[in-house]
Amino acid sequence: MDLERLLTRGVAETIVKEELSRKISSGQPLRLKQGFDPTRPDIHLGHAVGLRKLRQFQNLGHQVILIVGDWTAQIGDPSGQSATRRMLSAEEVRANAQAYLQQFFKIVDCQRTEVRWQSEWYDKFGLADVIKLTSKFTVAQMLVREDFAKRYAAGSPIAITELLYPLLQAYDSVAIRAEVEFGGIDQKFNILAGRELQRLVGQEPQQVVLVPLLVGTDGVNAMSQSRGNYIGITEPADQMYGKVMSLPDHVMMDYFEWVTDVPDEELAEMKEALLKDKVNPRDIKMRLAREIVSQFHSYEAALEAEEEFKRVFQQRQLPSEMPTLYLDRARYGVDAVPITTVMLETGLVKSRSEAKRMIVQGGVRLDGRLIMEEGQLVVIENGAILRVGKRRFVRLAFKD
Amino acid sequence: MDLERLLTRGVAETIVKEELSRKISSGQPLRLKQGFDPTRPDIHLGHAVGLRKLRQFQNLGHQVILIVGDWTAQIGDPSGQSATRRMLSAEEVRANAQAYLQQFFKIVDCQRTEVRWQSEWYDKFGLADVIKLTSKFTVAQMLVREDFAKRYAAGSPIAITELLYPLLQAYDSVAIRAEVEFGGIDQKFNILAGRELQRLVGQEPQQVVLVPLLVGTDGVNAMSQSRGNYIGITEPADQMYGKVMSLPDHVMMDYFEWVTDVPDEELAEMKEALLKDKVNPRDIKMRLAREIVSQFHSYEAALEAEEEFKRVFQQRQLPSEMPTLYLDRARYGVDAVPITTVMLETGLVKSRSEAKRMIVQGGVRLDGRLIMEEGQLVVIENGAILRVGKRRFVRLAFKD
Repeated sequence: MDLERLLTRGVAETIVKEELSRKISSGQPLRLKQGFDPTRPDIHLGHAVGLRKLRQFQNLGHQVILIVGDWTAQIGDPSGQSATRRMLSAEEVRANAQAYLQQFFKIVDCQRTEVRWQSEWYDKFGLADVIKLTSKFTVAQMLVREDFAKRYAAGSPIAITELLYPLLQAYDSVAIRAEVEFGGIDQKFNILAGRELQRLVGQEPQQVVLVPLLVGTDGVNAMSQSRGNYIGITEPADQMYGKVMSLPDHVMMDYFEWVTDVPDEELAEMKEALLKDKVNPRDIKMRLAREIVSQFHSYEAALEAEEEFKRVFQQRQLPSEMPTLYLDRARYGVDAVPITTVMLETGLVKSRSEAKRMIVQGGVRLDGRLIMEEGQLVVIENGAILRVGKRRFVRLAFKD
Repeated sequence: MDLERLLTRGVAETIVKEELSRKISSGQPLRLKQGFDPTRPDIHLGHAVGLRKLRQFQNLGHQVILIVGDWTAQIGDPSGQSATRRMLSAEEVRANAQAYLQQFFKIVDCQRTEVRWQSEWYDKFGLADVIKLTSKFTVAQMLVREDFAKRYAAGSPIAITELLYPLLQAYDSVAIRAEVEFGGIDQKFNILAGRELQRLVGQEPQQVVLVPLLVGTDGVNAMSQSRGNYIGITEPADQMYGKVMSLPDHVMMDYFEWVTDVPDEELAEMKEALLKDKVNPRDIKMRLAREIVSQFHSYEAALEAEEEFKRVFQQRQLPSEMPTLYLDRARYGVDAVPITTVMLETGLVKSRSEAKRMIVQGGVRLDGRLIMEEGQLVVIENGAILRVGKRRFVRLAFKD
């Protein structure tokens, strides 16, 4: 991969690009900072965009310094959040961190990684240090951050602690003398605070590589654990395959570009073919699913998952095994009941709002009939099959 | 002094009055918190209002806990300030604190005072403590404080450190388990934060005694060192006497009520006499000056100062000693020069803006002629006397 593509494929923004290019070209190994807050242990494909980029830098001889945010995790980064997060206990944080590290090294080379816990410097951080740090930034500087600004304007509470978050993240860069910091584009504010702080204390400001936010399985929002629209890198092969196949067509090429190593030339050909309708998008997507499953499992696992997927979904067959749910005939088999109530009863959805969302998205069928209305009333036939989304089925039967 | 007057004379507000009355009546000695930031060492009459109140409580058997704000002084309380203060060094803070304590015990009984330095708890205050403390308050809660709100709205920088100030002051109350906190009415926000924090950590919220802000010698603004409109309790007797005499009539009675022990009945008579024009306000003010000088020096010193004052000012005589300033004739004795330039040259004023203010207030005379215009041009006669305010004189002479 040439330098230009290293700094553009799967990259949203670099600051300052010329300077960073010069440093890479010099051949000196750079100290690449990647932070993570062990608030949740799972790594998903959205994270993989940045971690794969780190790996590419490692392959050029650079050194990753992974910051385990065991202190910031206790605060909880409010970036992009609309509310104050619950604070985690030190024990939760440690357990999450261990689980995370295992997954992290599925992508990043552990030989060229230095793991540093924030506790190294924050365990002995005193009030004088806090005063020194907080004196370097103003309230207004923090409140321009989009999420803070919105919450402040809306009158939602912002704990003073939350203003400390970007400062602590910034100080991490000072503590490890970071030369480049990696992060999602939503981390731009915090990472730039790091540059600013390094400048203020007389260090050379770090370069910045910001990766784009991968859209999740809903095709709309950035992939995130709290939204539930994610594909975890440790999910079973068939589930991972199925989730990739459930992606809307329009996000496919981003996945190819950011999460696979398929060469640019091939990507260009695919785009061309798609544009000219010379190919079925489904076939392209199957390639994507194979690439991704191969990466996190194996090529064999990918092929197996593909076979199962084809059998179940493409041939519109029902899965060989389907659970049967026994309902009370008096309640469901006589009068019409709201479809959402049935969906909840089966456990195929977890909430009424999820049920409604699935209906709106056209993902609910009762005995093959598409359910069109959120409030639709239905009478259940014995043996009817309820399908929610592409992969959730249940046979409905009466007890008597 | 009865309980009612204890809680009203020289008091702006008590929170919660009924509860505080009940506690005092119970006869149990209370822990009275008084904090001070050793940013400047001098105590003036404005401070004396609260310190005299503390002494009255001590006389009833209550215990004063004086918090030396050696940590908060390093931040600088922005209350009522329009800009971020310069941070003081630990050495400056210690030196100021020592000077302050000496003056403090001229009013407050050292036998019933426990002196506690914030460093007792803040030297070992870690990041975890900071996080715990800052999580209890929101940014919006702080920004409603009038001075913060104004500065924020005006786009003036507020260092994040400054938001920590009220929190640290609040935590002091928790650290010493304060039962009553004393402070100026401008401290209301911070002191209520103390109540709130005590409640949040499960302590009984402190009662609050807020004293009014004494107007300074300019008759307009609250007395403060930074404004220069203050009467320090260690100033020489004649200077103190003269400054009291320079007070505008309308603030006299507040001084009597808040800074002297003259009984309420006598105060009522004075007011009555003033109202019906049965007395010369000057005579009342001389009584005030005597009361105040007696309190901080001695009755004899007060009488002496009064004699000198009468001689110099009331008989419109010039002081027996007057400095002579030798000017360059070529510059001041030939062409007319701005009066403000002459004033600055003599050192009777410290800045051009002070010179202008004195002129506007009708306080500047050259050889007895009142200077009416800020921009007035004058030609200096050899031996002319320049007077600024009531007590600053200089004889102007030429070198040749």
